Amino acid sequence: MSTSPIPAIGIDFGGTSIKLGVVVGNEVIAHAPSIATQEYDNPEQLIQAIAQFVKYLKDSHPEVKALGMGMPGFVNFYQGTIYTLTNVPGWNNVPVRQMLQDATGLPTYVENDANCMAYAEWKLGAGQGKTNLICLTLGTGVGSGLIINNQLHRGATCSAGELGQTSIDYKGRIGHYGNRGALEDYVGNREIAADARTLYAANGQDKAIVDCNPLALERAALAGDPVALTVWNELAKKLACSLINCCYLLNPEAIIIGGGVAKAKDLLFEPLKNTMRGQLFAPLMESLEILPARFGNEAGILGAAHLAINTHFFEQ
Amino acid sequence: MSTSPIPAIGIDFGGTSIKLGVVVGNEVIAHAPSIATQEYDNPEQLIQAIAQFVKYLKDSHPEVKALGMGMPGFVNFYQGTIYTLTNVPGWNNVPVRQMLQDATGLPTYVENDANCMAYAEWKLGAGQGKTNLICLTLGTGVGSGLIINNQLHRGATCSAGELGQTSIDYKGRIGHYGNRGALEDYVGNREIAADARTLYAANGQDKAIVDCNPLALERAALAGDPVALTVWNELAKKLACSLINCCYLLNPEAIIIGGGVAKAKDLLFEPLKNTMRGQLFAPLMESLEILPARFGNEAGILGAAHLAINTHFFEQ
Repeated sequence: MSTSPIPAIGIDFGGTSIKLGVVVGNEVIAHAPSIATQEYDNPEQLIQAIAQFVKYLKDSHPEVKALGMGMPGFVNFYQGTIYTLTNVPGWNNVPVRQMLQDATGLPTYVENDANCMAYAEWKLGAGQGKTNLICLTLGTGVGSGLIINNQLHRGATCSAGELGQTSIDYKGRIGHYGNRGALEDYVGNREIAADARTLYAANGQDKAIVDCNPLALERAALAGDPVALTVWNELAKKLACSLINCCYLLNPEAIIIGGGVAKAKDLLFEPLKNTMRGQLFAPLMESLEILPARFGNEAGILGAAHLAINTHFFEQ
Repeated sequence: MSTSPIPAIGIDFGGTSIKLGVVVGNEVIAHAPSIATQEYDNPEQLIQAIAQFVKYLKDSHPEVKALGMGMPGFVNFYQGTIYTLTNVPGWNNVPVRQMLQDATGLPTYVENDANCMAYAEWKLGAGQGKTNLICLTLGTGVGSGLIINNQLHRGATCSAGELGQTSIDYKGRIGHYGNRGALEDYVGNREIAADARTLYAANGQDKAIVDCNPLALERAALAGDPVALTVWNELAKKLACSLINCCYLLNPEAIIIGGGVAKAKDLLFEPLKNTMRGQLFAPLMESLEILPARFGNEAGILGAAHLAINTHFFEQ
């Protein structure tokens, strides 16, 4: 059941592009062309475009039985509505589930995109068989989802699992929701790059790396650049703070980390594990695995499709 | 079932004293004399003393069917063992459940004391009917327990629910487990008193309040003392940080607050609610109630007794 053979369409709705695929088991067996999110003026037009591509996939795969879509923002799974999307204007209180279901004729479910990723890693990936886990993805922002007691944890208004909004400093900078010291405002790609530029400048190396993206900083650190190594260690300390908080609250068996920054592997994972080991009560650490995500870009499509199938046919 | 009529003995094992009572429904119908915790040299002697008082209660109430004990530290509920107690030396890896069951002949369960309190508030008190809640008690330390999806959440090694160990500052002072910026190290009674003394001294009022305990600070604030008011507002900001983190992670319906500091009511609750309202995504706040605990000192006895009965007869 965890790799259900019932075919479904999964959609990964991103701020830049929307990707669609037909999922069977843990494979995406067919893709539709990507949709450029920002080229549509309003939700209605964008949903019509998505529905056209769903039809395109359904024509060649009439065996699909459900449709799942992951979206970047606060999504009420049970109501099928979007409260708000992080980087796409105009999406406030949109009944997207009903609109998409009407336009496609398929049983449709919508969920937060990081919840879809967590669901894919739990059902099919690095978190298979775990009872409690947190799965996060590091990119422009920090997305995350929680599995608690063998269920995707949604909370009272389906707004749970937002590790990126948790604080690492009660006096820290004010973020998107008025919240102070949000992790996302310290470990997002832009913030990492800004910190790196500051450190290089303080070291008299203004031009050492022109674009301080994660890949450039990874290469520099692997070549022994001390500033780049400091950047990774500081990043690990900040991330560790939020993950330590998760552990003291939830005592999970696994933390699964994906996204661009996680590709640096040991540069991130080693200082992260060391910091956590030094700050966690021993039984919390001994029972914990810190793992790289199994799926990359297709986690969202896979998770959305499986969530739709499992909710529709098996009640999750 | 939530106020089970099956009688049980509940024990609240504190660092200073141990209290025992016979529980029926939401009442403690009989007490035993308190035991002075620190007068016993080792776990064996203390358990024998507890067993004597259990026998004393059982003789007058032979209808009791189970025994539950809450303890201040990391307790493995399923194994019935203590990893370590916070303020009682010599309690490391003690199989306390088996020892107490052998000594009393009653089906016995042991649990973290704050989990017992959370259980009592959820089953019988301020949290009745809630699906997801966090319950905390503010005193020398910060104790807390989580109810998630209608279950006491224990996690992989029964070490979950430790809000007091979560960080509010990733660069903060180093605490008991090597962890930085633990909430408990900012809002415990000793820390509040120290902060108050510092503020009074900075204000040229070294002798304004000799013993800056919560009650004295409450009276001073109610009389309009600006320093005492500042102390309460700062306390609320620090506490809000950890509670905001809980909300972004878990999206609970209720936060229940007990303990000495919570007796100050609006002095704590108003700035706490205002800070949280300003930093939480609106649907998280709209679905949230922030409530004073219903039970005071008897929460531990009530929760331990009900947890024992419900686990033994109804699987929680």
